[in-house]
Amino acid sequence: MLIRTGYDMRFETEVATPMMAMLSLHPSRNKDLVTPHRIVASPDVPIYDYLDGFGNVCTRVTVPAGGLTLSCDFTVQDDGLPDRVVADAVQHAVEDLPDDVLIFLLGSRYCETDRLSETAWSLFGHVPAGWERVQAIVDFAHNHVQFGYQFARPTKTAWDAYQEQQGVCRDFAHLAITLCRCMNIPARYCTGYLGDIGIAPVDAPMDFSAWFDVYLGGAWHVFDARHNTPRIGRILMARGRDATDTALTTTFGPAQLVGFEVHTDEVTG
Amino acid sequence: MLIRTGYDMRFETEVATPMMAMLSLHPSRNKDLVTPHRIVASPDVPIYDYLDGFGNVCTRVTVPAGGLTLSCDFTVQDDGLPDRVVADAVQHAVEDLPDDVLIFLLGSRYCETDRLSETAWSLFGHVPAGWERVQAIVDFAHNHVQFGYQFARPTKTAWDAYQEQQGVCRDFAHLAITLCRCMNIPARYCTGYLGDIGIAPVDAPMDFSAWFDVYLGGAWHVFDARHNTPRIGRILMARGRDATDTALTTTFGPAQLVGFEVHTDEVTG
Amino acid sequence: MLIRTGYDMRFETEVATPMMAMLSLHPSRNKDLVTPHRIVASPDVPIYDYLDGFGNVCTRVTVPAGGLTLSCDFTVQDDGLPDRVVADAVQHAVEDLPDDVLIFLLGSRYCETDRLSETAWSLFGHVPAGWERVQAIVDFAHNHVQFGYQFARPTKTAWDAYQEQQGVCRDFAHLAITLCRCMNIPARYCTGYLGDIGIAPVDAPMDFSAWFDVYLGGAWHVFDARHNTPRIGRILMARGRDATDTALTTTFGPAQLVGFEVHTDEVTG
Amino acid sequence: MLIRTGYDMRFETEVATPMMAMLSLHPSRNKDLVTPHRIVASPDVPIYDYLDGFGNVCTRVTVPAGGLTLSCDFTVQDDGLPDRVVADAVQHAVEDLPDDVLIFLLGSRYCETDRLSETAWSLFGHVPAGWERVQAIVDFAHNHVQFGYQFARPTKTAWDAYQEQQGVCRDFAHLAITLCRCMNIPARYCTGYLGDIGIAPVDAPMDFSAWFDVYLGGAWHVFDARHNTPRIGRILMARGRDATDTALTTTFGPAQLVGFEVHTDEVTG
Repeated sequence: MLIRTGYDMRFETEVATPMMAMLSLHPSRNKDLVTPHRIVASPDVPIYDYLDGFGNVCTRVTVPAGGLTLSCDFTVQDDGLPDRVVADAVQHAVEDLPDDVLIFLLGSRYCETDRLSETAWSLFGHVPAGWERVQAIVDFAHNHVQFGYQFARPTKTAWDAYQEQQGVCRDFAHLAITLCRCMNIPARYCTGYLGDIGIAPVDAPMDFSAWFDVYLGGAWHVFDARHNTPRIGRILMARGRDATDTALTTTFGPAQLVGFEVHTDEVTG
Repeated sequence: MLIRTGYDMRFETEVATPMMAMLSLHPSRNKDLVTPHRIVASPDVPIYDYLDGFGNVCTRVTVPAGGLTLSCDFTVQDDGLPDRVVADAVQHAVEDLPDDVLIFLLGSRYCETDRLSETAWSLFGHVPAGWERVQAIVDFAHNHVQFGYQFARPTKTAWDAYQEQQGVCRDFAHLAITLCRCMNIPARYCTGYLGDIGIAPVDAPMDFSAWFDVYLGGAWHVFDARHNTPRIGRILMARGRDATDTALTTTFGPAQLVGFEVHTDEVTG
Repeated sequence: MLIRTGYDMRFETEVATPMMAMLSLHPSRNKDLVTPHRIVASPDVPIYDYLDGFGNVCTRVTVPAGGLTLSCDFTVQDDGLPDRVVADAVQHAVEDLPDDVLIFLLGSRYCETDRLSETAWSLFGHVPAGWERVQAIVDFAHNHVQFGYQFARPTKTAWDAYQEQQGVCRDFAHLAITLCRCMNIPARYCTGYLGDIGIAPVDAPMDFSAWFDVYLGGAWHVFDARHNTPRIGRILMARGRDATDTALTTTFGPAQLVGFEVHTDEVTG
Repeated sequence: MLIRTGYDMRFETEVATPMMAMLSLHPSRNKDLVTPHRIVASPDVPIYDYLDGFGNVCTRVTVPAGGLTLSCDFTVQDDGLPDRVVADAVQHAVEDLPDDVLIFLLGSRYCETDRLSETAWSLFGHVPAGWERVQAIVDFAHNHVQFGYQFARPTKTAWDAYQEQQGVCRDFAHLAITLCRCMNIPARYCTGYLGDIGIAPVDAPMDFSAWFDVYLGGAWHVFDARHNTPRIGRILMARGRDATDTALTTTFGPAQLVGFEVHTDEVTG
């Protein structure tokens, strides 16, 4: 399956403002590109990439006084399969986890494992370890939190989402991630494109999406507490401990996002 | 100056419990060793090290049922000088910061930059940028928070410390770090040994200490919001975004710290 | 299966001489340790480890005037299985290889791909790509080179081994690695312990051994051009482009190896 | 000073041929960009970058049957100063070198330290250590080798250049690097743009250039055995152990370079 994906984003600022953006395809998908992948800046200011400690492509650019438009449009090959269900993927004992996976058991800005540990154990301690336990956590988060864009708040954490029972896709992800970590299941936050391939058309402007990975049976597996059903066509952009590590843009000074359009659709060759 | 440093720590558990420890000398001090550096486990269970993403040495070990003692005792060369004051170290524009420094501007588990940003700008926006601004932040944190071991709490964040005005050295560090990051000054959390060399003997059991680094004038500089005075003989163990990244021990299951002795003293050859 | 492994090595020098050693267990085997792994230096001088760019543990130590003994003795769990034969492991097109594998297609100190390319294509161009081609290369190297300790020479390269038809295990490895790379099959040099488990006892003092990995079917696979038969109980110490990257010891100044004993044997719990 | 730099390179192939290219600005110069830096492929095939183990930007692309043109054109800020001479930069004892510098003391494909060690010590053992010794090595290489494009050969090593006394800029660099390493002075190979800023115009088509860095006094310093005089306007593209690690293009299959134009000139804003 071919998926054509991209965005147009317009930022306005009064003074030149440095920005860090994670608006590239994740390197793990580089080999799937069938057209060039290129971020176009308008005006055509200098812009460069580096890799962060999680392997994400970070773009540094200074939004000039007056504003900047960033655009991207590319086509990737995708296997077209829904998220895999591997019901027999085992939960590893902590001592068996690879060294570089351990960090995804720790707390982070939006995932206060220390505050949700008791809750997690009381809710999921009796559920069989492994895939079933993760699914129970995802079911819980999916049902516990009411979705609504009006509930979005940059400071909202997993604990807040748990208490307030309201949020957007990133809050669903943070809550489920935190509960997984509390149960000693490594979990990392993912952000990227997710269109409506294979589902009924959604009557809302397209946005980026947040989901998460858990480490079971020697591999990372996708879960999505917002939708809680296998989906087709996730195009990863960045992953990390939580939304802090994977913010689409971080501006160091005031900047307004005045235009925002995302697309991701199946296309024919 | 030679400093002899080390610890004895005893953990007790009912069942075998995996542990991740950051109880080694930081690699940046390896060349200063004048005796071997070796963590001794008793009983003599398997134990191995890896490097985390921040360059810290992490030790993995399973505390056997019954318990485990970890000990270390080594001597390092030190220049014997107090923390440097570089009053003319400039604050970099964000766009001039090296790529790998940017992460130390972001929020983290105990450093909610998003919640303290307004406070930071109202308090320090008028202070000249650079060393003077950092010193103003450190003065503020030092005076705003009352020290007391009874105020320690694992979930306490910079925001909590700001609100409650009470804490231990890690809370002083988290508050000052967060305020620095809000002002676009990169700041990272440090943990290590700090004895009473050059000051009046302290009548309290020795403990590990927390301080922080800020990035000014193209280099990292030590600040200490708890003591707020240049000190001699800091022996770094780990650094990271905050106390999450540098926890001396993280146990994945219940474990009790039943013995704890730290030493760090000037010695003669 | 449990394997007890280690060494005693004695170096003598007239003046203090810095050394870099790769005499540790490779980190990929850390989880298999059932006893502590510790390099003991006598006299007990300072010694520290770092990780090189290939993920090997490198030890830095200064051999004091008079000399130094390094010893190690540890037990690891091993699956006890002979090297796997995966006859259907496919050869990847170069454009499908992961980024970090490409370096193992390039030339290196002892692997002059530029000088052996024509030979490789004329010998193996007609052999089906994949496992069969690698096995043909290994068969060739195994038969082309006559083994003999007297043929060892530090400057000997794959080209030299090809021309002279004589060498030791590292020369077999270098020749086979080079031919694989010429055929666009990534190959990396390995060094470690290899005892006589599962074969007739060898009537010669035990030594470290050299073999190599090739990348086929999305994974690295062990091949051994010296022995050319699946073996049991390889305990990896280091891997890299060739013997330069994985030298057991590199001394920066004159030093004599005056004692050398290696052991690696199956033991019972 | 502003320098406008870039190239047009045309490759022709009969069948689609994978290529790895190091044709980007080195990341250490990213902050100096005053226009966008972008490799343009014609036809506009997919192309992506990764970072190699030395921190160079590597570009992966498949040259389609028929051929491919790669072009680049950008402007960078430069201090306009000639290569620094730091005559008092000390030579470090090997034990004092940083861990990640040690690799630049080892042999590599084109730098056979093992074969040139005796020569190096007999020629330079009596020269005072440090800058003076490096300069003596550079003087030697500069005078020992006769420059001529007709002497270029892909398999030519430092040893060959020493024996044949003929070569191109990469051979000058390899010989000087090897002699430095033999004397325990870390040296790394550099490739990039070097125009005729500040010198008399050169009556030859412009090419990329090779020079090298040595590690003295806690920092890397530029030396150039081909020109042996401080020059203005080096624009680094890649660095590594030798020309293997920094090849401008490596094609995995036959490809002809049928067009080649490089430019690098001072421009006014």
